[in-house]
Amino acid sequence: MPTATRRIRMRHRVTAALTLEDFVIDETRLPEPAEGEVLTRNLYLPMDPYLTRYLREWNGDAPDWKHGIIVGRTIAQVVASRSPRWREGDYVLGSGRWQDYDLRGESELSRIDTGKAPLSTCVGVLGASGITAWIGVTQVLALEAGQTFTVSAAAGTVGSIAGQIAKRIGARVVGIAGGAEKCRFVAEELGFDACVDHRSADLDAALQAAVPQGIDRHYENVGAPLLDPVIGCAREHARIALCGLQAHYQDDKPIALARFRELLYKGIGVQAFRLNDYRPVYRQALDQLGDWIAAGELRYRETISDGLENAPAAFLAMLRGAGIGKHLVKL
Amino acid sequence: MPTATRRIRMRHRVTAALTLEDFVIDETRLPEPAEGEVLTRNLYLPMDPYLTRYLREWNGDAPDWKHGIIVGRTIAQVVASRSPRWREGDYVLGSGRWQDYDLRGESELSRIDTGKAPLSTCVGVLGASGITAWIGVTQVLALEAGQTFTVSAAAGTVGSIAGQIAKRIGARVVGIAGGAEKCRFVAEELGFDACVDHRSADLDAALQAAVPQGIDRHYENVGAPLLDPVIGCAREHARIALCGLQAHYQDDKPIALARFRELLYKGIGVQAFRLNDYRPVYRQALDQLGDWIAAGELRYRETISDGLENAPAAFLAMLRGAGIGKHLVKL
Repeated sequence: MPTATRRIRMRHRVTAALTLEDFVIDETRLPEPAEGEVLTRNLYLPMDPYLTRYLREWNGDAPDWKHGIIVGRTIAQVVASRSPRWREGDYVLGSGRWQDYDLRGESELSRIDTGKAPLSTCVGVLGASGITAWIGVTQVLALEAGQTFTVSAAAGTVGSIAGQIAKRIGARVVGIAGGAEKCRFVAEELGFDACVDHRSADLDAALQAAVPQGIDRHYENVGAPLLDPVIGCAREHARIALCGLQAHYQDDKPIALARFRELLYKGIGVQAFRLNDYRPVYRQALDQLGDWIAAGELRYRETISDGLENAPAAFLAMLRGAGIGKHLVKL
Repeated sequence: MPTATRRIRMRHRVTAALTLEDFVIDETRLPEPAEGEVLTRNLYLPMDPYLTRYLREWNGDAPDWKHGIIVGRTIAQVVASRSPRWREGDYVLGSGRWQDYDLRGESELSRIDTGKAPLSTCVGVLGASGITAWIGVTQVLALEAGQTFTVSAAAGTVGSIAGQIAKRIGARVVGIAGGAEKCRFVAEELGFDACVDHRSADLDAALQAAVPQGIDRHYENVGAPLLDPVIGCAREHARIALCGLQAHYQDDKPIALARFRELLYKGIGVQAFRLNDYRPVYRQALDQLGDWIAAGELRYRETISDGLENAPAAFLAMLRGAGIGKHLVKL
C-alpha cells in the first residue's frame, strides 16, 4: 500500500491569469485509512472550467484549499477500504485532490455505473456536463420544435450535447465554436445544421447568415464576445440560458456588452442557472441521456492528457479552448 | 383658428449626448384639417425617457422624424374636427409632435377619461407609467408577500408606483434614489420601508444595510451603476425586471457590469420587458390602479415646467434626474 503520493498544488495565491508557474508538483505522506475512510487511486481528473474560479480565488484560508491544495473531481478506484460501504476495486466519483492516491471519507463518494458506457463518461455525457446540457435546453430554455437554437462552445462537452438534444427536439441548431476543425466536428460529426467560427473576421455577419430567421433560444457557455453577436441576432422575446462564462474566469474585469440595450428593446430574458438547482430532475436527465448513448444516438469526444504532472498544462489548454469535448487527465 | 404653430425640432443629427444646442424652436404653417383630421391644441407634453433613443438615433430619413421633427406623446384638446369620432373640446392622448397646435388623424387618438383623476395622470399613474409599474411587479417579477423588493429611480413615476404596489403586496420595499430630498419623499411620503441614496459614498454598504436578508426581486430603471450593487446584494435565485436603462440612453458605450459573474454564481434571472408585450392585461392594471387612486391609496407627484419653449430644458433636466415623479411640460 502506498505511503506517499504525488500531488499538484498552487504555488502561491494567484491574482492575475493562471499560468504554468502557479502550479507545483510535490509529494505528501499518505496515512493509513482511519475507520470510515478508503484509500483510492485516481484514474481520471476532469478538467472542469468552473475550477478556475476556485484556483484564482484561493486565499489560503478556506479549509479545502489550505496550502494551495486543489480540490476538483476525480474518477477513482478503491485500493483499500475501512468502510463497509466500499470494497477494493469499486469505481467511485467524488470531490478529491489532484493526487495519484488519496484518502477519502466513505460518504464523500458515489458509485460509478460501469455497465453502460466508458468510465470517463460519468463526468461527461453521463455526468454533470450531460445533465447541465439537458437542463439548460429542456428546463431553462424550454426549447420547442421549429425554434432556432444557438449554443456557444459548441464543440465543448456541454455545448455539443446541448446541440444534439436540441436537434432531437426538432429545433434548427447552430453552433458557435473556435476554428475550422471544431466547426467541422460540430456540423459534420454532431449533425448541427450549421456551425459558425467565432474567429471569423466578421462574426456578426457570419452568425446572421446562419440564422436568417433570428435566434429564439441561446445557450451561453463563454461570455461577452459571443453574447454580443447573439443579442444582435436575437428575435424579440428571445431567451438566453447562461450556463458558463469561460471567457471571464481568468480575470476579474467588468464584463461589458455593447448590445446590452437591445435586451431591453427586444424584451429578452437572461436566466443564469446552476446544476445544483435542478436536483429533482437529475434522474430523468440521466435516464434519457443513457438511452440515447446506448442507442448510439448521442455522439461525444474526449481530449485526454496523460499523467498527473501534465494536469496544469491540460487545464490551461482547456481554458484556451484547445481540443474537443471533455478534457480529462488520465493518471 | 390658428394657421401656424410653434414647434421644437432637432437642429441636426446628434451623435454625442443631447444638449440644449441640439434643439431649435421655429414656426410652421398649419393647413386646414382635411376630411378625417382634427386640429388639436396640445396641453401637456410628457417628458418620457424612452424618447432619448429616438432623438439620438434620428437619422433624417425615418418618416416620423423627417427634418428633425420630434414625435412624442401629447395630451391635447380638440379645437376643430372634420371627423365624426371627435368633437371640439374632447380631451385626447396620442403620438404627436412637440408643437402648440397640431393636425392629427382621427384614428391616432384615444379619449382621456377626465372623470377619475387629473388630466395629466393619463401619462403617469393612470397611463403607461402606472401600467408598466404594475406589469413589472405583478407579472414579470411575480412578487410575493414577505419578499424583499428593491426598485431604482424610486422617486420617478414608474419607480414610485412600483414600490407602492409592492408594499400593497406585502413585500419589504427599499427604494434607490438620488439625493436626500428624493429619499425623504420615497421613505416618508410614499411609505417605502427604506430608501438608499445612490450618491452615498459607499452605495454597496448602504444598500446592504437596508436589505439585511438580501434582495429577492428587483425592478431596474437606470442601468449598470445600480445593477452592480443590486447584484451584489441579491439572494440566490433573485429575479431582476429590466424596465429601463436611463443611465445609458445618452451614449452608445458598452454597458459594463463588474458583478456580471455573480448572475451565474447565484442563478439570477434578468427579464427585460416592454409595455406593448402585455396588452391583454392593460385593463386589469388600469382598473386596479384607478381603484387605488380613487381610494387615495396611491400617491404620486409631478414635476411640471411651463411653455413649449422650455421643453428641451425640461427634457434634459429629467434625464439628469432632477425633480420628482412624472415630468411634464404644460403648454
